Amino acid sequence: MSLLIKNITLVPMTGKEEVVEKTNIYIEGDKIIYIGELREDIKVTKTIDGQNKVAMPGLINAHTHIGMSLLRNYADDLPLHEWLTKKIWPIEAKLTAEDVYWGSLLSMVEMIQSGTTTFCDMYFFMDQVGKGLEESGIRGILTRGIIEESGKEKEKLDDTRELYKNWHGKGEGRIKVMVAPHAPYTCSPAYLEDVMDLAHELDTGIHIHLSETKKEVEDSYKTYGKSPIKHVYDLGLFKLPTIAAHCVHVDESDIKILRENNVSPVNNPSSNLKLASGFAPIDEMLKFGVNVSLGTDGSSSNNNLNMFEEIHLASIVNKAVNMDAVSVPAITALKMATINGAKALLWNKEIGSIEIGKKADVILIDMDKSHLYPRHNIISSLAYSVQGSDVDTVIVDGKIIMEKREIKTLDVEKIMYNAEKAAKDLVGR
Amino acid sequence: MSLLIKNITLVPMTGKEEVVEKTNIYIEGDKIIYIGELREDIKVTKTIDGQNKVAMPGLINAHTHIGMSLLRNYADDLPLHEWLTKKIWPIEAKLTAEDVYWGSLLSMVEMIQSGTTTFCDMYFFMDQVGKGLEESGIRGILTRGIIEESGKEKEKLDDTRELYKNWHGKGEGRIKVMVAPHAPYTCSPAYLEDVMDLAHELDTGIHIHLSETKKEVEDSYKTYGKSPIKHVYDLGLFKLPTIAAHCVHVDESDIKILRENNVSPVNNPSSNLKLASGFAPIDEMLKFGVNVSLGTDGSSSNNNLNMFEEIHLASIVNKAVNMDAVSVPAITALKMATINGAKALLWNKEIGSIEIGKKADVILIDMDKSHLYPRHNIISSLAYSVQGSDVDTVIVDGKIIMEKREIKTLDVEKIMYNAEKAAKDLVGR
Repeated sequence: MSLLIKNITLVPMTGKEEVVEKTNIYIEGDKIIYIGELREDIKVTKTIDGQNKVAMPGLINAHTHIGMSLLRNYADDLPLHEWLTKKIWPIEAKLTAEDVYWGSLLSMVEMIQSGTTTFCDMYFFMDQVGKGLEESGIRGILTRGIIEESGKEKEKLDDTRELYKNWHGKGEGRIKVMVAPHAPYTCSPAYLEDVMDLAHELDTGIHIHLSETKKEVEDSYKTYGKSPIKHVYDLGLFKLPTIAAHCVHVDESDIKILRENNVSPVNNPSSNLKLASGFAPIDEMLKFGVNVSLGTDGSSSNNNLNMFEEIHLASIVNKAVNMDAVSVPAITALKMATINGAKALLWNKEIGSIEIGKKADVILIDMDKSHLYPRHNIISSLAYSVQGSDVDTVIVDGKIIMEKREIKTLDVEKIMYNAEKAAKDLVGR
Repeated sequence: MSLLIKNITLVPMTGKEEVVEKTNIYIEGDKIIYIGELREDIKVTKTIDGQNKVAMPGLINAHTHIGMSLLRNYADDLPLHEWLTKKIWPIEAKLTAEDVYWGSLLSMVEMIQSGTTTFCDMYFFMDQVGKGLEESGIRGILTRGIIEESGKEKEKLDDTRELYKNWHGKGEGRIKVMVAPHAPYTCSPAYLEDVMDLAHELDTGIHIHLSETKKEVEDSYKTYGKSPIKHVYDLGLFKLPTIAAHCVHVDESDIKILRENNVSPVNNPSSNLKLASGFAPIDEMLKFGVNVSLGTDGSSSNNNLNMFEEIHLASIVNKAVNMDAVSVPAITALKMATINGAKALLWNKEIGSIEIGKKADVILIDMDKSHLYPRHNIISSLAYSVQGSDVDTVIVDGKIIMEKREIKTLDVEKIMYNAEKAAKDLVGR
């Protein structure tokens, strides 16, 4: 298909112009082939009217557990330990492949409806997420969370090897597989080395939780005499490209390690607030040149997958933390959710910005809303005023996934029904 | 009109049952006359199907400056002083009555669309806000912000006296007028005494900014040797019912004064974060029995008037501040936005909860959304997952103001057009 988005306000996120007024975007196949004046010589099969809309790159949710949507609003307002051990883990133990299928599809619907076109997932029954990605038409990284378990060490590594074989590069290249040691406190140093060997063997990246809570850092000092970041660095983890979820409790030397090793921390503002994990030093990391991206975490600690909420939070929360209204300005929060996310996911040559030659992962925001008037500044509007529900159209790989809020690739009613049913069955099991 | 909301899930906010499944709400004229089983003997002229919806009290935005919507996204990511003195104040000086009319109507559209049925406003050209309240059919408190200005002391008091005479009790009782000394740092003690005399004369409440920034508190200690709260308390302000916006930088003795004098602080999470004002000790105030309510502040420091965002923030931000995931649970955040707001606005005998005999200010949330499945816990869902755009129907004083997201009382297109035009003219003036 060839597609023209006509007369559109463009926020390209290329680091050059912030806003381009009244331009035209030509898409052929999966790629953006031209941006600029109307061209008589390019024939298109479909034209979208850009009047009163803003185009920006599809949002990138760099850390989530999408199968957890079945546990949304199941257990809230509890201390972290009680939440995990008495509520989340017992119910997760009962999850079936089918549950994860419906939960993942429910999450994909929600992500599409709020402008996310790419996500990096860590969960289990990851084949189901792969199936969902093929069906939904969006883009994602599959990682099977590896927690060391006596007798199952090899089996878990083989799971990821199998996952890689079956899914890496599938969905016309929209699916990638990485290796996900859950955290340094759930994998021993010896096992982490086996996990790293696997990632080297598959020549792929790492997705891990690091320094999420104060207790985790204190425990690491007790056990290893150093921070979680220094600990995994010393083990050689950062020789592999690494997506490091959270990085809340990090000090200056941690930040230096992250920067020098091109590690990409993922900030999850809602989750860090809701689970009382704390405030990550985002401004400090960004100013030091660290590639901080943005994620929602799972919907049981958020409780949604709305990246516009995370953009909003990343900007306003850090201003208060730093007592500085200039901290993490609007454009920076938007970068975290787009091009920085693409870098974190090793996908920045193809996605994360709207420019000629890149994949056509584009979202259109309907600006004809009461809360988006007046139009003094589009960048501020996107970071501070836009809601997930203002996303009108979603294009991934040049294909229209949602138009006028109607999802073309998935049966939304059926998915909501089956997810509700699966969740109710699960609780009663 | 008589109205039946049939087969609805009700979150009454009465402090008794949190959720009532499958009930029926009967409304006659402006009042709720019955809640419970279907009644053959009550005749109604209209029935709303409550299937897949949740009814809750209309949200109460206890502190805002709605005319400021014309300045939305006009000046962001600036230090507070520069923002105010170089951007906001110079442009506010150019505002006309007509500007404030369109800005206020734009805000009312936005508030209705996100479930707010009552607001407490502080601005100028307040007659325009009164007109908007009559037209929109929603409920509000008008307060003309009084900043001491040499030669205009008496004029400003007379403005409020006139406002009270013209608008208090109007709109079938949906409009009230209070007295609004802007802040103790913009009104001298002598002038504050004149302002208090006026409030006593009119027998109405006070709306004031208190202890918003650290600097304000430090300056108060320098000038008066005490905190802003102690300062106005000593002047006798709290003999009048007081809505105290912000109260961010308060200590234990301030909190004691607020509690003992039934002062209602209004928490404005988005604004306090965005302007880097800091974190108000909400949990501490609530636990000490202070009636903390919730507001959006103006849309140039937020940048929207979405109370569901504030509910979400009030709950999650305070968990992180207190390093306690149990802090400000979902139901408490919902109280802040409903019954506590009603108490702050001296309106709790009539609004703030859904019970027989109260005014019918009811909103219906459309729960048939991907981010609202599964349905484990409706209270969590409302606080953590619901978006302003999920509000389907808004009823104020028994009248349907919005149904299936269509506003019945206002010409939305015309308002958005005129607000945009007014804002553009204003910037060019």
